[in-house]
Amino acid sequence: MATLKSFVEVHPDSHFPIQNLPYGVFKPSPTSAPRPGVAIGDFVLDISEIARAGLFDTPTLDSSDCFLQPDLNKFLGLGKPAWKEARATLQKILSSTEPVLRDNASLRQKALVPMSKVEMVLPVVIGDYTDFFSSKHHARNCGLMFRGPENAINPNWFHLPIAYHGRASSIVVSGTDIVRPRGQGHPTGSSPPYFGPSLKLDFELEMAAVVGPGNELGKPVNVNEAGDHIFGLVLMNDWSARDIQAWEYVPLGPFLGKSFGTTISPWIVTLDALEPFACDAPKQDPPPLPYLSEKISKNYDISLEVHIKPAGAKESSVVTKSNFKHLYWTLTQQLAHHTINGCNLRPGDLLGTGTISGPEPESLGCLLELTWNGQKQLSVNGLTRKFLEDGDEVTLIGYSKVLNLILNHGAIYLLNSAPVTLIGYSKVLNLILNHGAIIY
Amino acid sequence: MATLKSFVEVHPDSHFPIQNLPYGVFKPSPTSAPRPGVAIGDFVLDISEIARAGLFDTPTLDSSDCFLQPDLNKFLGLGKPAWKEARATLQKILSSTEPVLRDNASLRQKALVPMSKVEMVLPVVIGDYTDFFSSKHHARNCGLMFRGPENAINPNWFHLPIAYHGRASSIVVSGTDIVRPRGQGHPTGSSPPYFGPSLKLDFELEMAAVVGPGNELGKPVNVNEAGDHIFGLVLMNDWSARDIQAWEYVPLGPFLGKSFGTTISPWIVTLDALEPFACDAPKQDPPPLPYLSEKISKNYDISLEVHIKPAGAKESSVVTKSNFKHLYWTLTQQLAHHTINGCNLRPGDLLGTGTISGPEPESLGCLLELTWNGQKQLSVNGLTRKFLEDGDEVTLIGYSKVLNLILNHGAIYLLNSAPVTLIGYSKVLNLILNHGAIIY
Repeated sequence: MATLKSFVEVHPDSHFPIQNLPYGVFKPSPTSAPRPGVAIGDFVLDISEIARAGLFDTPTLDSSDCFLQPDLNKFLGLGKPAWKEARATLQKILSSTEPVLRDNASLRQKALVPMSKVEMVLPVVIGDYTDFFSSKHHARNCGLMFRGPENAINPNWFHLPIAYHGRASSIVVSGTDIVRPRGQGHPTGSSPPYFGPSLKLDFELEMAAVVGPGNELGKPVNVNEAGDHIFGLVLMNDWSARDIQAWEYVPLGPFLGKSFGTTISPWIVTLDALEPFACDAPKQDPPPLPYLSEKISKNYDISLEVHIKPAGAKESSVVTKSNFKHLYWTLTQQLAHHTINGCNLRPGDLLGTGTISGPEPESLGCLLELTWNGQKQLSVNGLTRKFLEDGDEVTLIGYSKVLNLILNHGAIYLLNSAPVTLIGYSKVLNLILNHGAIIY
Repeated sequence: MATLKSFVEVHPDSHFPIQNLPYGVFKPSPTSAPRPGVAIGDFVLDISEIARAGLFDTPTLDSSDCFLQPDLNKFLGLGKPAWKEARATLQKILSSTEPVLRDNASLRQKALVPMSKVEMVLPVVIGDYTDFFSSKHHARNCGLMFRGPENAINPNWFHLPIAYHGRASSIVVSGTDIVRPRGQGHPTGSSPPYFGPSLKLDFELEMAAVVGPGNELGKPVNVNEAGDHIFGLVLMNDWSARDIQAWEYVPLGPFLGKSFGTTISPWIVTLDALEPFACDAPKQDPPPLPYLSEKISKNYDISLEVHIKPAGAKESSVVTKSNFKHLYWTLTQQLAHHTINGCNLRPGDLLGTGTISGPEPESLGCLLELTWNGQKQLSVNGLTRKFLEDGDEVTLIGYSKVLNLILNHGAIYLLNSAPVTLIGYSKVLNLILNHGAIIY
């Protein structure tokens, strides 16, 4: 079977071939209303125009106004049948052999917007945001640093996907400046706490699942059906102020050390697009309790990188290379665990994976681990870093590539020179300088 | 000055005299759209009808559609000037000397709905919910139970209002049944965890501040201006599964032990209505850092009770009597601390106080403390309880009474036999029986 190709020209290095088609919400111009779109090559396809043109001629989507909304929540709430219909329709419309859009100049003019002109906004209204702690390497390193080798990983960690509730209001889309937070830190022993701008500002390399239909309060989701509730993934930078976090987190967990900002990528890559890159999840020992035991336990092979570009530098440096497949607890286990007490999930909710660290020293997912809480220097483009400095730009990149392979997971793809890169870039940080100044 | 009186008949024991006027959102009939109202005697005044009649003839409210919304968020976002105008207008319209509503039978017919006929819904869309830990007695008791007397209260507690992010999706309005959560517990030592319905289900007696305008990301609220961002208070029952919580909470804090349900009262009592009951906050030692030092440090004298009515019992028993004034950290300190890192608050956000325990054994705010984690029995209406049993109904009551006093806090009230009871009832729980059964 031939490779699926689009009539829209897609450069071989593009993150957005027709096999990807991630969903986002964008404004074609600064004054226009936000609307859903998918990325294709250097363009955004305005799905509201496709819907208005009556091209979603499928059972679930035909009479729905889900693409006329300013966010994706309604579409996500429709669930898997709608997601499948939309993907099939969009791939067909965009394919090189289908004339309906290709040969309609007026519709193309309205619906295909150059990516360079659009402003991306948050793709969903996030009702609740939860952050898990699912990388064993990350959990062990944090434990080694703060509790020592005897009990590096707390015993509960191997029995359940540990998580905490995060702050939804301060989740921002990639490109939004983050202001260095102020707060209390504590030197040691019985010293009084100090107050000021955080001296240990960190990134955390994460991804996050975007929830689909969700469940009613009191009605848990079975782990084997949990995949039906995950629409796709975003890259996520869970900015962390390590000094604030260390002083505040006993006994109720992280609070202000995290809530000053969390950045997600504008594009949601669907699980359908990621299916060719599915791989086995790590073996879990001890075996999980029955409510967490799944028939198919699946991860995704997604290469992840973090780049830092210091203020004034011409280029960025890669400071870590990790992979999504290192996660111990799967997305579906996370979701099922989240609901086992009856907690309800709603469309658009975000489930962060926690920092995704790998086993090697160069695959650690945050500066806390990379510099061992500031005890070591990290080389960044000729400079050194223990933690982030004002003006640093942090970029997360994720990609999955398969070359010359025929994959068969429900669909047949032949991906020759068309790598699916997850998200072009996810995050640029410009720290606002406020060291020393107290601004109210 | 004479006592302000309404033309609506208000029984001396009513919770809703004209001095209170708490805000809620209600449906006059099961099929009608939700709309804002205030409680007066045995009636709800439909504020959307008052707005439609053009009676909010004030600078901020005149051209606003905030009372034509299905929630109070827009009104809350308008801030103090709008809140003052609305209260003054509603007190005037409802007063015995003002004819505009009193003598307009058609408007009265539309706008005054018998409380017995309405369905109350959540008064606000809650973007984020945060729960503090501001009672020293509660913090000390928890520490004594789980960490011993040497370090009962963790050192950070005296320097900052400890808090965690809670789950917004599972906040429900008073009267909503709560399903006993299932989850993992852990017996002791190196035993494996068990799974099943929680065996240690608890209530927590709390109140919560409802946030007004809030702040932009990156721009903290000064503690001396924090009062402008608090619209009012609700009663809150932060249902807790102590066995789930104890096993999961290290190191990231409470998660599924809390997120299965949180109940708030339908009526928001405004800080304006509570002003006559303001009192000095406890002296803080050590003195707080400058960003938490306030010119006026204020609590409220609000009597709080918890009643439990076992299934089949004819009457409920009072199991605790506490008071809001026992809180160590003030509402304004909580709010200022929340934003000091730049975290943004939005209209409708909820800031829970944490369990409000007093110093006496009979003033403890949860069963964990009252039965010392199940080591003692509590007498409830001839029965005993260590933790909650299926079918128990839990009711929180709050009230502030001032008799024969002239109070002067900006306004002059004479409250003779018109006690302001905060909320008639806040919560009735019917636990759904699911012991032993595994329902997916």
